[in-house]
This record gives sequence, C-alpha cells and structure tokens, in this order.
Amino acid sequence: MLVINRPTEMQAFSKAQRAAGKIIGFVPTMGYFHEGHLTLMRQARARADLVVVSLFVNPTQFAPTEDLSKYPRDFDRDCRMAESAGVSVMFFPTPEDMYPDGYQTTVSLGEIPKVLCGVNRPPHFAGVATVCAKLFNIVLPHFAVFGEKDYQQLLVIQQTVADLNMDLEIVPGPLVREPDGLAMSSRNVYLQPEERKQATVLNRSLRHAEQMLRQGIHETTKILDEVTALIRREPLAQIDYIELRALPRLAAAAARPRGRHLLALAVKFGKTRLIDNTVLDFKGTT
Amino acid sequence: MLVINRPTEMQAFSKAQRAAGKIIGFVPTMGYFHEGHLTLMRQARARADLVVVSLFVNPTQFAPTEDLSKYPRDFDRDCRMAESAGVSVMFFPTPEDMYPDGYQTTVSLGEIPKVLCGVNRPPHFAGVATVCAKLFNIVLPHFAVFGEKDYQQLLVIQQTVADLNMDLEIVPGPLVREPDGLAMSSRNVYLQPEERKQATVLNRSLRHAEQMLRQGIHETTKILDEVTALIRREPLAQIDYIELRALPRLAAAAARPRGRHLLALAVKFGKTRLIDNTVLDFKGTT
Repeated sequence: MLVINRPTEMQAFSKAQRAAGKIIGFVPTMGYFHEGHLTLMRQARARADLVVVSLFVNPTQFAPTEDLSKYPRDFDRDCRMAESAGVSVMFFPTPEDMYPDGYQTTVSLGEIPKVLCGVNRPPHFAGVATVCAKLFNIVLPHFAVFGEKDYQQLLVIQQTVADLNMDLEIVPGPLVREPDGLAMSSRNVYLQPEERKQATVLNRSLRHAEQMLRQGIHETTKILDEVTALIRREPLAQIDYIELRALPRLAAAAARPRGRHLLALAVKFGKTRLIDNTVLDFKGTT
Repeated sequence: MLVINRPTEMQAFSKAQRAAGKIIGFVPTMGYFHEGHLTLMRQARARADLVVVSLFVNPTQFAPTEDLSKYPRDFDRDCRMAESAGVSVMFFPTPEDMYPDGYQTTVSLGEIPKVLCGVNRPPHFAGVATVCAKLFNIVLPHFAVFGEKDYQQLLVIQQTVADLNMDLEIVPGPLVREPDGLAMSSRNVYLQPEERKQATVLNRSLRHAEQMLRQGIHETTKILDEVTALIRREPLAQIDYIELRALPRLAAAAARPRGRHLLALAVKFGKTRLIDNTVLDFKGTT
C-alpha cells in the first residue's frame, strides 16, 4: 500500500490512473479504523480497480470546544487494517497541506445542516462539505463511499455533489454494529463500562420503532414518544435529540408521514455523544 | 459551432473529448459579446484543441436591486461572434438547469470579497465563485480564461480554484479598451453620449497613476489624491471607490507600498456603474 502526503502528488497519481483507464474508489476517513470503516473499504474494493482512503482529522469540522486534539489516532494500525481491506493508497495530508496560509474558501449548504447534528454545531457540516469537495478534487475518484452511520453527512455530501455538478457518484455504505447492537464508532473507546452497557438502548429503541411501523403504527408522536421513553429508562442517557425527518432534505415529518423518513438520535452517555439512526419507509400507508 | 443546453450533456461531451486527448479551453461569460470577450476566446483557442464558451446571466451574482432582468442579451449575435472567434461549443443552460428545486450550496471566500466591489454587494462574489465551481465541474476544462477587466473576480476565482484543489489552470486575459481608452463592457451601451465622453477619464486617470509611478512618486495618498482629483473634474462622475490594494489578497496598501498592487476604481456615470483598474508594480522602490 502506497502512502501519499502531498495533495499535488495524490492528484497526479490519480490522473495517471484515470488516464490508464482505472476505476478509482474513495473512502474519506478520520482514521482509528473499526469494522465499519473496513466494510466501506471492502465495498469500494468490490467495484473499483483501486481504492484510495484518506486519513485526515479535519480541524474545520470540530468546534473550538470539541475533541480535535484528543481524537483517537493510530496511523500504523490504520495502515495495516486498510491494507488488509484491499486499499491501494492511503492519502495522509497535514492540516498545513490542506489549509495553507491565506486559505479562505468554504462550501456551505442552506438547509440540510440546519437540523439534527447541525443545530448546536453550525460550522460542522460546512467543514465537512468543504473538506470533501477538496478531497474529491485531489483524489479524483469515480465514486466515494460514505457510511449511513453519519446519515446527515451522507445527505450533505450527496447534495453538495449534485449542486456543484461534481463528476463522481456518492455510494451509501451500511452502518455496522457490534454484536450487542451498538453502532460502531471511533468514539466508543471513550465509554465507561456501565455507559457502554446502557448505550445499547439506542439500537434497541430504533428496532422498536421499526417494529411499531410493521405493526401499523404510523403516528410520528407515538413513535417518538416510545423511543424517548425507552431511552429515558437508562439513567446515564442524556438525550440531545430524537427526531423523525423526511428524506432526502430532512424536512420536519408530518403527523402521519408518507414516504422514506430518517429516525435519527443523538444521546450522551457521560462525556461521550453517540448518534444512531434508521430509515423508516412509511410507503403509502395512512 | 455546437450549442449545448443541459449540464449533463455538456459534461458527457467534455468527458468524451478529454478521453480522446483533447485540450479544452473555457471562457465563462454572461453574453452580449464585445471585443473584450472575443479576445479571451481567441486567447483560449490559441492553446486549446477546442474552446467552450458558457453564456449564462447568473442570477445569484445580482443583488435584488440590480439589473438582472434588463441585462443586455442577443443570443444569435453572440453565437455568430463566438463562432468567428473559433469557439467549438456554446454552453447555454437555463437558470432551472443550474439551480434546480432544492438547490442549496454556496461557495464563499472569507477575505478577497470583503473589499472593492464586494463592500456594497456582499453576496456577489459568492454567486460568482459558486457558479464558476459548477461551470468548471460541468465543462471540465484544462484551463479557463478570465479577463483582467474584472480583476477582483479573477482573484476570487484563482483563490477558489487553489483552495478547493480544482484541477484546472486559471489564465488571465487582457483588459481591452475602445479607441478612446474606455474599458470595454457590456454595460457601456447604457451610457448617454455625454456620460460616455466623460467616462474616458477613468482610463486617463489610471494612465496618470502609471506615469506618477514612473516619475518616482510612490506614496499611496499622493497617487490616490491625483486620480481622485482628475475624476472629480468630470461633473457626471460619482465615485464609488478608488483604492490601491496589495496583490494577490487585496490587503490595504501601505503608505509607501512595495510589490505588485491593484489600483482599482468604480465610478457611476448616470445610472451606469463602470469599473476599471491597472496593476502598479512598486518593485523594491522606496
């Protein structure tokens, strides 16, 4: 596996590969890989001639109060894991390479970032959209895989690519769970044992919502109330949000929704904020 | 000459040309061509296998109070002129093609747009940067030519392309003048005969500044004072700004500048706002 640091070198490499007719798949990451990342890399590998993974803990998507400096890192382990998943190139730039002196450009969206994880972190999704626009221009992939774990991020990137007419496909990848159902996240390492145990309620509450839908319960408030009640049973859970929103633009759900909706939640256990989601398809039901 | 309306069709055309090894030059315009536009097209033709010109009067770079609806248009004449300048493709999308329902993405810059023509038109350069990012992704050119008439726009685009790592070269093209020195502009058609006559003072004042520099006068205030005095002699001239700013980021000039600076001005004659500029190189002089 090749490690490339400089954006210009990465771009030149990709241009040469494209000129040689190779299909380039891309998985942007912030590192500290788990099975969720590896699943996306294998998914990319299955339909590309070569896979590029970027590892960049992007400072512009962290708020000043957030955990940028203590975000978990282990480059050597990440390289071994990526290589085992069939990755050909690890693009590993420095913040100075990505944001040199005088840097001043931002890609921002007007609607999708205003809800859910964007409410209390206004610049977060602008940071995400901007760094992804840069990475797409540097890596020049034919497609890029984004996990459904960060569903709002996936929607932001799909909208950015469509709005700016960027010439690549955005491919959703599955959310991967631990055996007990907790969504995999690099931040799970922060959880204390009792927090880790109670955090499984997030998955259970989402499965309960799916069950309600299958039983013909289609009222937004009923679903949200039961999900909220389940999570409130866990004493360490501090709810940030639990919301049902219409796809793909995250408009507020109607009292009796129709079509595909995102049931998304963010809950803190101790100091660790976890997110999880599921897509509920209300079809034509009333 | 081929006329293409749909962004997807334009992108597919350009990808096929690139795959065939063709070098694509690009000149984005708002139409109503004059010799200034044609000069940029010929400049592109000289170093490309084919030249694409876009004609799009971009609504997002006009303020609500501005002249979007009455911006001069003559598509058939523009096509004839572009063809005569060696243009292969005219890309002519509708506003609905460029900004479909749900569109919500903006590319904005933090510094360069805050001065000169950006002061009273905050969203203008975000509109320009956004539409150019879109056009570059649609037309996929190897290089794009931007005239030095809109020097601040040229700087905005150069910065956007560098910051977002876009894979194309931005090539400056010369400002073209009428025989009496007035900078060519699609808006010159709005000038009444007496306004048109007095407007030649803009070019004369810039040439006077160049003359002062050659004579060893290097004080910012002296240069600006004399340029201002010259323009004030014309009774119909209403000065918007006359400024000297350091290149390439348009920082305020020192009292005794060093290096390359932009002497830029915007002056209204009647209802018509004209801009003009020249680059003054103060070299190592003191």
